[in-house]
Amino acid sequence: MTDRFAGGPGRRDLAILATALAVAPGLAAAQGADPLPSWRDGPRRRALLDFVAAVTREGGPEFVPPAGRVAVFDNDGTLWVEQPMYTQMIFVLDRIRTLAPQNPDWQRDPVFRAAIAGDMRGVAAGGTEGLMRLAGAAQTGNTPEEFQRIAAEWLATARDGKWNRPYTALVYQPMLEVLGLLRANGFTTFIVSGGGVEFVRAFAEETYGIPPQRVVGSSFALTPGERDGRIVLTREPRIDFIDDGPGKPVGIARHIGRRPIAAFGNSDGDYHMLRYTTEGAGRRLGMIVRHDDAEREFAYDRDSHIGRLARALDEAPARGWQVVSMRDDWSRVFPA
Amino acid sequence: MTDRFAGGPGRRDLAILATALAVAPGLAAAQGADPLPSWRDGPRRRALLDFVAAVTREGGPEFVPPAGRVAVFDNDGTLWVEQPMYTQMIFVLDRIRTLAPQNPDWQRDPVFRAAIAGDMRGVAAGGTEGLMRLAGAAQTGNTPEEFQRIAAEWLATARDGKWNRPYTALVYQPMLEVLGLLRANGFTTFIVSGGGVEFVRAFAEETYGIPPQRVVGSSFALTPGERDGRIVLTREPRIDFIDDGPGKPVGIARHIGRRPIAAFGNSDGDYHMLRYTTEGAGRRLGMIVRHDDAEREFAYDRDSHIGRLARALDEAPARGWQVVSMRDDWSRVFPA
Repeated sequence: MTDRFAGGPGRRDLAILATALAVAPGLAAAQGADPLPSWRDGPRRRALLDFVAAVTREGGPEFVPPAGRVAVFDNDGTLWVEQPMYTQMIFVLDRIRTLAPQNPDWQRDPVFRAAIAGDMRGVAAGGTEGLMRLAGAAQTGNTPEEFQRIAAEWLATARDGKWNRPYTALVYQPMLEVLGLLRANGFTTFIVSGGGVEFVRAFAEETYGIPPQRVVGSSFALTPGERDGRIVLTREPRIDFIDDGPGKPVGIARHIGRRPIAAFGNSDGDYHMLRYTTEGAGRRLGMIVRHDDAEREFAYDRDSHIGRLARALDEAPARGWQVVSMRDDWSRVFPA
Repeated sequence: MTDRFAGGPGRRDLAILATALAVAPGLAAAQGADPLPSWRDGPRRRALLDFVAAVTREGGPEFVPPAGRVAVFDNDGTLWVEQPMYTQMIFVLDRIRTLAPQNPDWQRDPVFRAAIAGDMRGVAAGGTEGLMRLAGAAQTGNTPEEFQRIAAEWLATARDGKWNRPYTALVYQPMLEVLGLLRANGFTTFIVSGGGVEFVRAFAEETYGIPPQRVVGSSFALTPGERDGRIVLTREPRIDFIDDGPGKPVGIARHIGRRPIAAFGNSDGDYHMLRYTTEGAGRRLGMIVRHDDAEREFAYDRDSHIGRLARALDEAPARGWQVVSMRDDWSRVFPA
């Protein structure tokens, strides 16, 4: 402790330093440490930095007050890996196998039998209807709290087939940097995912720093009731909202209640969210992560069943959306 | 600028002062200005302060990290006046009268005719079904953004019948102080209202400092579509969620995704929310605003159609809920 603090800081000193501290993150970003170290210099990196500079420049023509700085992120394929299968689907299949011994009647259902045997062709033969039945059987009949515990435990132990790493390690380092850049500049960041809201909540806070109330997603119906004299909410095997495609603007309006000024996606499932965001008045940012890096991740777009990217890609130039090349724009893909 | 800042503050100085600033709000609340000046000393005021002290005391047995400090507030009758009629219902009836000239066919419907004539008995004769039709006709067919503009314009000009003040001035000063106390102590505050989510969002940010994404409420269905080459969401005259009674825990789980540790209500419509909150493990606070002040506001409880309070009142002692007497516990009711 030096002498000058012996009597404690004065009121004026505090005010001066409060100001210094308040602007410090912005200063650091603008003048000091690079906020986007995993982004190679180029149009996409510059688009990000220019957008943030424009909407935070007080008195500037494109200034947006902090309350309006809402940014939305798709999850699968935008923040973490979605190939060769959505992680939540891998979880569902694992869980069906785990629960199979307690559910001998499942063996009479060809889709369940295929899932238990690991026969993906047989699962696919059941179509969307079959998948939804598997998803319901694997994930419902519990409370949101119980389900999130189950999902979190699975995520803590499961490993992906390509890198043998936990799924929560297969997040895109450059996108973590975007989340950090936006937050350091007064943005509120939301996930708007086609995945189940409670599945994403099971890891979003620890993995992305996004708390449960800032996760929008698809959902099973919740039924209120009582158990042992306490209120319990039960997840029912009935989907009551699909937060994908045209559902994403609905989820945003319902949950966030304000049109975002920045949206990040990677597939046609994000097309409506990108439009809803960038059709608003004033400066906007729409950004698409394009998977063109077979070496470091995967390469897929218009012919993929998962994360199909065609219409959004075709319309990107006319709509002013930035298409990120994972291969060219990112110097690294995953955290160390 | 004194000499000691000539070179700018050093890293260590900043760290020391950052710590000082971080604890400053708590210090001010504990040692300086009274955070609850409109609360008379007594068990309710002490319950509030004790709760906040317990859950924020780092290392203490009841400490809750900031992320878990979620507090939920009912709106009608808890944050603002709900008698003699919910403000949103007054808005609906005003709007029906405003729109009547453009809708001559409404005159053929007895409930609409009664509403246009200001015949409340005739409106009541239509029952809940009639009210819902009026509510739908008055409030839908527009986008969430358009509707919020309409509601905000109405709130800016409408005056209540008893005090001749804007409805947004008829908020409870002691509850604004509770919102402030909780926020100063790292809480995230949400409204969980039986009212329409977009109606409450039209004033919650300016009136309570609660942004749209922290308002949970009842909702009309939203349909995505296109108009003039832009995505539009249309509010349909079909209610898709009722955030009242047993619906409140559902709304909380769906939207917030975390069980609150404090809940504030005033009627049996808040009973389930109070239970859901206080049945969680660890220190909890359930508080009921009881309207027993006919002189300064209104006096009503178990016999009231609006804001009926019976079951929650009867079970309050056994459940440890604090029942606030507006008359005795509040030194003032409204802001100056």
